[in-house]
Amino acid sequence: MSRIVLRNVRPWGGDASDIHVDNGSIVAVERASATTVAQAPDVRGEVVDGRGLLAIPSFVNAHAHLDKSWWGKPWVSYAGESGTQGRIAHERAHRGELGIPDLESTVALVRELVRTGTTAFRSHVDVDLGVGLDGIQVVREAVAAVDPGLALTVVAFPQDGVLRRPGVLDLLDRAAAEGADLVGGLDPASIDRDPVGQLDALFDLAERRGVGLDIHLHDSGELGAFQFELIVERTKATGMSGRVTIAHGFALGDVPPARQRDLVERLADAGVSLTTVAPITASPLPLDMLRNAGVPVGLGTDGIRDLWGPFGDGDMLRLAGTLARLSGWRYDEDLRSAVEIATCAGAGFVGRTAHDLAPGAPADMVLLDAENLQDAVTRAPSRDTVIVGGRVVVGPGAR
Amino acid sequence: MSRIVLRNVRPWGGDASDIHVDNGSIVAVERASATTVAQAPDVRGEVVDGRGLLAIPSFVNAHAHLDKSWWGKPWVSYAGESGTQGRIAHERAHRGELGIPDLESTVALVRELVRTGTTAFRSHVDVDLGVGLDGIQVVREAVAAVDPGLALTVVAFPQDGVLRRPGVLDLLDRAAAEGADLVGGLDPASIDRDPVGQLDALFDLAERRGVGLDIHLHDSGELGAFQFELIVERTKATGMSGRVTIAHGFALGDVPPARQRDLVERLADAGVSLTTVAPITASPLPLDMLRNAGVPVGLGTDGIRDLWGPFGDGDMLRLAGTLARLSGWRYDEDLRSAVEIATCAGAGFVGRTAHDLAPGAPADMVLLDAENLQDAVTRAPSRDTVIVGGRVVVGPGAR
Repeated sequence: MSRIVLRNVRPWGGDASDIHVDNGSIVAVERASATTVAQAPDVRGEVVDGRGLLAIPSFVNAHAHLDKSWWGKPWVSYAGESGTQGRIAHERAHRGELGIPDLESTVALVRELVRTGTTAFRSHVDVDLGVGLDGIQVVREAVAAVDPGLALTVVAFPQDGVLRRPGVLDLLDRAAAEGADLVGGLDPASIDRDPVGQLDALFDLAERRGVGLDIHLHDSGELGAFQFELIVERTKATGMSGRVTIAHGFALGDVPPARQRDLVERLADAGVSLTTVAPITASPLPLDMLRNAGVPVGLGTDGIRDLWGPFGDGDMLRLAGTLARLSGWRYDEDLRSAVEIATCAGAGFVGRTAHDLAPGAPADMVLLDAENLQDAVTRAPSRDTVIVGGRVVVGPGAR
Repeated sequence: MSRIVLRNVRPWGGDASDIHVDNGSIVAVERASATTVAQAPDVRGEVVDGRGLLAIPSFVNAHAHLDKSWWGKPWVSYAGESGTQGRIAHERAHRGELGIPDLESTVALVRELVRTGTTAFRSHVDVDLGVGLDGIQVVREAVAAVDPGLALTVVAFPQDGVLRRPGVLDLLDRAAAEGADLVGGLDPASIDRDPVGQLDALFDLAERRGVGLDIHLHDSGELGAFQFELIVERTKATGMSGRVTIAHGFALGDVPPARQRDLVERLADAGVSLTTVAPITASPLPLDMLRNAGVPVGLGTDGIRDLWGPFGDGDMLRLAGTLARLSGWRYDEDLRSAVEIATCAGAGFVGRTAHDLAPGAPADMVLLDAENLQDAVTRAPSRDTVIVGGRVVVGPGAR
């Protein structure tokens, strides 16, 4: 039965409404009818009772690492060194013992993420000389196994470096040829020691294969800012506007305000987007400035319970609250925008033109018992119902 | 029936044990017997089945503001100005409209805090020319109404300043005379504009009345550090070692490491403790340094849903995880210490000599479904059972 009506929900905290779904997509949002289900002659198909709950689009996790978690396994004590390089080395040395990338752990993690309302993922997946492209296959299988309606965008991610590991560039090229949506990069300066070399190689590959780029940039201060410039320059030169993302981009948080404005203007001009994981130990990104300039910003969880560290539970609503707090947001409008960043604003990061409670969008939704969006984002109550393509996958009536 | 046995729990994540309670206190912790409840001849009194869950002492909220929340009321949009002074002014102007301090909201808030496992509170309560001492009465009534076994330590808190508001010092004196456990202070420099004047007045009052001091210090950098020194000097001069707390103490997070060491040594020498609310927008306190020096550190929630801002849900376990993340803690030992800071290390802040899973301590405990302390603090699973003085107040069998 492809027609479904989600009755009596409050979209974005507004008036009670009915959301009509056909073939997995929203076809209409109407003020809730006073008639009972039995009386309504125009409703054919399945009816889901929304019980007056708050409805929002499901969460879009724009920066995940679904391949490297040990979620669901017995506790793994952290034993690595500090710093990005220390954590990379620790992961390389020990992932084999844990069977990572592991289908079972990835399924367990994705199931947990869906439980808290995420139905669309942009996942970086490690591609290196050790695991080759196996991780991509594991993540694809795991996501499909949890629910075939989940959206997955794959970034073939050179976690261990590109130029410093001969052969990785070929692997990335193969990943792109075999269907990876984007190719990743990692600290061209501090890891590969050759910012121009790594970026030229990645942009060349992306142009040839017609894929996007999503580049991790942890480097701070002017070293990071310089690489923002290099990425912007190459995005413009290759005409890749709208298809290049900088992940983390800590530098944009820690340079002085005038330099922030300069970089934000360059990002906007070149059509380069950003993803953040709302890190509480880095200077926050200038979100107001980015919003005013129209730079797309996606929110993601980063790694969860992996060999980089034991933290993270994948709750995107709680993460949106952290983002708001980091930004000093207290006013209603700002709190609502934090929910938007975690939901509809993520559309472009998972290859969707719309991810909203509006006709034409996929019927991916979350229902929760909250007074309004502000209440939801500051309190992060448990998710009552999670809906994928109109089907209830978590909550009363889930099948 | 005053004898209770909590069977088959894992104290601190250790082996399955039985915890014996008599008259509200723990009297024995023994390896779990293999015998069933019916067979055990030595067990008289009530038996609570712990089902193999992880057991920890309940949480101690060492820095709460129980009087000023609008928890449970319809959403209150934030409309204040920025900065400490702006928030104080906003609160003064609008608390009356909300009926704050409000018994009903305070009861709702305390109930929510108990639900997530907190059973002991050090609460600052506003004392000023507007509300007088009414807030103290409201908080005492509310806590007693939720459960008479909850522990409450009251700080009479001059949120609107001391010297700059003639009459407030007399109110604080009256509060101390009428049973407040401690008297508070607030940014002697930036708010009262007279650090020596405010501190001399507070220490004089505390000495005369035989109460402790708990002083909010938001001032950063050297201005804050100077006030650390003034507080330390007066603590030593008055012999008040062990009875003075600095709350927030942001300055200790943002001065250079050598100055941090200097201040930490002074705190340790004078017996001055600290409380933190794990703020994600301030430089983190040097917790390792404080721990090594033996300076007591308590963890608290700060205000929750009040006219200072809409954030906070009072979950102390989640807050302990935030504290760990802010401190860059990843190793097991550090993660466990974060749970200790939120529980047993809080004893002194609520006038207890012990708050532990050990004979002699009050039988205040939390049971939760977690593999170990590290799993608990990184994932913050919902609390299964909350126990006050041996009685189940939240969870299966709660009365």
